[in-house]
Amino acid sequence: MSQKLKTALDAIVPVSPDNLKRAAMHMDSLTKPQGSLGRLEDWAIRYVAIRGTPLSKVEKKCVYLFSGDHGVVAENVSAYPQAVTAQMVKNFLNGGAAINVLAKHMNTEVVVVDMGVNHEFKNISGLIHKKIAMGTGNMRRSPAMTRDQAEKAIEVGLDLAYAAKKQNVDILGTGDMGIGNTSPSSAIISVLSGKPPEETTGLGTGIDHDSWKHKVSVIDEAIKFNRPDPGDPVDVLSKVGGFEIAGIVGLILGAASQKIPVVIDGVISIAAAVIASQLNKGARDYFFTSHKSSEPGCEIGFQLLEQEPLLDLNMRLGEGTGAVIAMDLLEAGTKIYLEMATFENAGVSKNKN
Amino acid sequence: MSQKLKTALDAIVPVSPDNLKRAAMHMDSLTKPQGSLGRLEDWAIRYVAIRGTPLSKVEKKCVYLFSGDHGVVAENVSAYPQAVTAQMVKNFLNGGAAINVLAKHMNTEVVVVDMGVNHEFKNISGLIHKKIAMGTGNMRRSPAMTRDQAEKAIEVGLDLAYAAKKQNVDILGTGDMGIGNTSPSSAIISVLSGKPPEETTGLGTGIDHDSWKHKVSVIDEAIKFNRPDPGDPVDVLSKVGGFEIAGIVGLILGAASQKIPVVIDGVISIAAAVIASQLNKGARDYFFTSHKSSEPGCEIGFQLLEQEPLLDLNMRLGEGTGAVIAMDLLEAGTKIYLEMATFENAGVSKNKN
Repeated sequence: MSQKLKTALDAIVPVSPDNLKRAAMHMDSLTKPQGSLGRLEDWAIRYVAIRGTPLSKVEKKCVYLFSGDHGVVAENVSAYPQAVTAQMVKNFLNGGAAINVLAKHMNTEVVVVDMGVNHEFKNISGLIHKKIAMGTGNMRRSPAMTRDQAEKAIEVGLDLAYAAKKQNVDILGTGDMGIGNTSPSSAIISVLSGKPPEETTGLGTGIDHDSWKHKVSVIDEAIKFNRPDPGDPVDVLSKVGGFEIAGIVGLILGAASQKIPVVIDGVISIAAAVIASQLNKGARDYFFTSHKSSEPGCEIGFQLLEQEPLLDLNMRLGEGTGAVIAMDLLEAGTKIYLEMATFENAGVSKNKN
Repeated sequence: MSQKLKTALDAIVPVSPDNLKRAAMHMDSLTKPQGSLGRLEDWAIRYVAIRGTPLSKVEKKCVYLFSGDHGVVAENVSAYPQAVTAQMVKNFLNGGAAINVLAKHMNTEVVVVDMGVNHEFKNISGLIHKKIAMGTGNMRRSPAMTRDQAEKAIEVGLDLAYAAKKQNVDILGTGDMGIGNTSPSSAIISVLSGKPPEETTGLGTGIDHDSWKHKVSVIDEAIKFNRPDPGDPVDVLSKVGGFEIAGIVGLILGAASQKIPVVIDGVISIAAAVIASQLNKGARDYFFTSHKSSEPGCEIGFQLLEQEPLLDLNMRLGEGTGAVIAMDLLEAGTKIYLEMATFENAGVSKNKN
């Protein structure tokens, strides 16, 4: 393991139980029945405990859209051609994609990172150039990445989290773009849960049942060919993962090490969160799972992470679209905490107990 | 039935299937796999079909917080004293409540209406004075309202919807405040579903198990005493309802008659939506159920309304807090519809099928 990754992992400490208790006490002093804002309260209390008191207003939310291509598309596992990854990266930079519209509505900055798209973007403006290769290897017949490539990709995510800390970003979000990337995500979740690919694999961007059966067999063969070691998360990531997934692993670990709350998108980000969590279980204190997508790997991922998603909107787009919605609700929770009147100062009677 | 209510009911027409089809076609031309934004797409398509094309941007969202007191609190069914209704109305007007914070974050106006709070507010500014009485009668021993009072309260809601139309409000939301008002809501849902109060009654603002058993028996006795006619929704509303619930019924029907989308909050608003829907089933085309609260009456209400809630955040506060969150997501969906690039104009390849 690289020194940089080791340093990040060593810096992750559990969230203070005292902070959690203090935040919950303040939440209970506000003019509403205790606990009546449900999940919003739970998230806000954890946010406050992470950030420490006195709490400042959320000023800056930022979603990181890690993009990469996948050699496994040669096996015909996706409904879309590989060229769409690069086309969508340009669409993100032009502001025409779903994530742009949602992020603008939710007052969130979008950062687009090329981790390994199979296209030379040259000097295209607005893109963070961190290309490690022109796409991964085809995991059915070779490892997706070398171990060195996987660690380099994780370090890109770490560095982005460290830069976010310097720029005073209050909430990070994860997002992904990569045609074919539900296949490595399902593979990762299969290896780390021990569940067969039939149970972790879905329809991705929209394949039919026959194509789904084929996709399951490709993932199964990729696992059998590579024999990733479930006890070594970086081995799993490098053999059946992807560059953008590794970038997300790094962002999550970097955020946790810097005590920045990070909101996790759908199945691709969940696969990354499972890897991050196996590298250091303490990272779980710092991330928030935003939504359950229609990919079956999500549910298994949540079990591994011991977290419930905030939302279930039947979404399956990726790009961080679920994350930005949940980031906005997390911000709303912090406002509840900061701005609501207490029973005391509003002159409202408490309950009879 | 009053002429005003009859006119509103007669003006409700089903949403045009052609409009729905056209909106869905445009949604499918945008740069995302078809249907991949799930519930956000469904809601946006229905919104567009209601409003007609060309669609304009959402400029104005408004949540109506109907407040009223309940005679049944004499039976000790709530965790809070009745004085809290008036205290919270003042808190709303001072901006210190949860709904104020959330509505401000979601860029939504809050309109507070006194439908029948047991307090003289005099000339307090910012409050819409529509008091019908100083609280309802105790439904365990008398009807909650006369039929005339119930119709007058419905007409308040109708008038507010007509005024909203004139003020170009794009999305309405429903909210409530009234200590004790989960009891009439459960009673309404019991009568109209045929399910016993054990199945429709929850812990409200937070009572213990013994108090819950007592609350169930009070609701049961109220129904037995009043014998509301399930075939006559205004009879049910007047005998075991409340002034704020009647106001919400009117707002929903007025919105539907004016083709304004209206987002429904938790169990109190759901009880009102069930009444509205029984008065004219066509109203369902115009309302959107925002969230499932921890009150068991919600689930039964959704079955009666044949709608699924957008969110399940374990909230149980009322005030329209669930509605404003969902209203913001409905607005986000309209932006997806209006602002995203198409495959054509972004130069993104379509899927292989």
